[in-house]
Amino acid sequence: MSAAAAVGATPGATLLAEIREQPAVLGRLLEHANEYAAVAAEARRRRVRLVRMVGHGSSDNAASYGVYAFGLLPAWTAMRDSISLSVYYGAQVDLGSSCVVALSQSGETPDVVEYVLRARRRGAFTIAVTNATGSPLAEAAEATLPLGAGPELAIAATKTYSAQLAALALLAGHAAGRGAELEAGIARTAQLLEEFLPTLERRLTEIAVTFAFVGRMFVIGRGPEFATAREISLKLLETCRVAAEPLTATDLVHGPVAAIDGLFPVWTIASADESLPAVRDAAERARHAGATLIASGTAAAEIEGAAHYLPVAPPPLSLLTPLLSVAPGQLLAWALAQAKGLDPDRPSGLSKVTLAR
Amino acid sequence: MSAAAAVGATPGATLLAEIREQPAVLGRLLEHANEYAAVAAEARRRRVRLVRMVGHGSSDNAASYGVYAFGLLPAWTAMRDSISLSVYYGAQVDLGSSCVVALSQSGETPDVVEYVLRARRRGAFTIAVTNATGSPLAEAAEATLPLGAGPELAIAATKTYSAQLAALALLAGHAAGRGAELEAGIARTAQLLEEFLPTLERRLTEIAVTFAFVGRMFVIGRGPEFATAREISLKLLETCRVAAEPLTATDLVHGPVAAIDGLFPVWTIASADESLPAVRDAAERARHAGATLIASGTAAAEIEGAAHYLPVAPPPLSLLTPLLSVAPGQLLAWALAQAKGLDPDRPSGLSKVTLAR
Repeated sequence: MSAAAAVGATPGATLLAEIREQPAVLGRLLEHANEYAAVAAEARRRRVRLVRMVGHGSSDNAASYGVYAFGLLPAWTAMRDSISLSVYYGAQVDLGSSCVVALSQSGETPDVVEYVLRARRRGAFTIAVTNATGSPLAEAAEATLPLGAGPELAIAATKTYSAQLAALALLAGHAAGRGAELEAGIARTAQLLEEFLPTLERRLTEIAVTFAFVGRMFVIGRGPEFATAREISLKLLETCRVAAEPLTATDLVHGPVAAIDGLFPVWTIASADESLPAVRDAAERARHAGATLIASGTAAAEIEGAAHYLPVAPPPLSLLTPLLSVAPGQLLAWALAQAKGLDPDRPSGLSKVTLAR
Repeated sequence: MSAAAAVGATPGATLLAEIREQPAVLGRLLEHANEYAAVAAEARRRRVRLVRMVGHGSSDNAASYGVYAFGLLPAWTAMRDSISLSVYYGAQVDLGSSCVVALSQSGETPDVVEYVLRARRRGAFTIAVTNATGSPLAEAAEATLPLGAGPELAIAATKTYSAQLAALALLAGHAAGRGAELEAGIARTAQLLEEFLPTLERRLTEIAVTFAFVGRMFVIGRGPEFATAREISLKLLETCRVAAEPLTATDLVHGPVAAIDGLFPVWTIASADESLPAVRDAAERARHAGATLIASGTAAAEIEGAAHYLPVAPPPLSLLTPLLSVAPGQLLAWALAQAKGLDPDRPSGLSKVTLAR
């Protein structure tokens, strides 16, 4: 069922259709690989030293991933830049050797467009990454990279978020001279996602009922998976009225662990990478404090005593794991909203394009 | 009563003594102004283009303030750098024109020390900002700037956080050639804080009882006050078991507003600056969704329909407002913990120096 056909159908049908569409979206993004290669080449030609990513909501979560994609592939410093600092407070920082990557599903977010206009005037190489290649953002930026996600109808972004992660990985891969490897990696990851979604849908439907009365949750991820922790938290906030808070493993032990009691589920995303010992320790601290653990990620099995295990298969590059590990959270948001009697397609008080500044 | 004398006394006595000590701490910091001037001069001499701030917990919250202090005073780009990216994942980014500002109360946080050692080897100008000038962090860094906060005994940091804000403002002020103005501004702000703490203690004690059953909260701030929103949230998480989440005004309307219901207090920090319209709109959306509002900040009176108003007096520079506006949150954490029967001096599962990675 296409997302468009699903509108107006069962509660959550639109969101589910878009979650299911993600493997196809990643395939469509790869059709634009040459455009990503050309923009990466231009960034290299201009000797970019700093990547400034801007976006709100899910787009800002994707930017958390970009910090690692650019840091680990071309070894460029990438930061989630403050939109307020330049747009509202008028700071006049030097942008000469900067590249701006502006992330917006609709390409209409006013302060992101304004940020790009200012940065371009001040010498930055500005790149719009958007679904809407004819949007104000695309017009404002010097280069535009299409996400290929197609119209997103559910208010909670899912396929746009995955496309943004893949877009950042692809751009960073080409910047590092590893474009072909990343293209193949994303294609294989899309295949893994396709294979693993049906089982996951069933698992999350079962698990969701046990969380029907949950009002708060921590979601723990580190490194590239901190983006996943942020995105899962946002989905739960938007669709399920759960006060979910993303934390790195280190954040948790620097204070918030004190808030945990038996009513506090803690979702831990464990990757088989350098961050695993910290994530495992944080999970242990949370369990000791009485939390109910959900363990996901490629190293879910390494988390002791979790109530639920949602392992994901390892993709060819561990940097691509977040493309898979967000799916259990998207599906929990979809299933839990229904278990709570909410319509995940129509969260209260939200509209698809946020024009508020 | 000194903090040391308060240990072992009434629950919360240590935390309260350290909250009260803050004006004096700011005064002690200013005794080191020449050291701040010298380090700022050295950073200018080395043509620093990027300030990389690192720290965990409250120190990382202070770094959110640093983004604005450096952005608005010397117009330098300052970022909260990822410790994981270099320490755990071994990213080899170019640090040649970077300055590192490492924030740690104890100077013992292992991965912050490790980050500084690596950055120094790779050519960054490394600065430790700490209470412990003989600590491993101070030894690792090329320059050390003392906070002058003295021993902090309560587990929840308060006076160290204010000292960190003032340290960042002072360093940024000297970097901008406006050191004297910032010194006078901090001195005057310390005076305002001294005058306003006693009334605030009484107000927060009254208000806290009405929040005794609150389990979750949003804290909204934008611009320099986003640091305050993060710090107030952390205090409430640490001492009161409230799942408090910091959001910018824009974050709120990009999703989390959907989670709000009548049981959801929203604390808004409103400053009389460029961010006010966005904060006012976000508060209005939250109130419309049924939230109970607490309005603080220099422009608290601009928030319509709040249940509680906690205005702060405007300091000589609006950039210094966060030194005042964190105090109501610190005092709520102190008072609410007691209203909930918890000891704010001894949050469950935390120790003063977090050695966990």
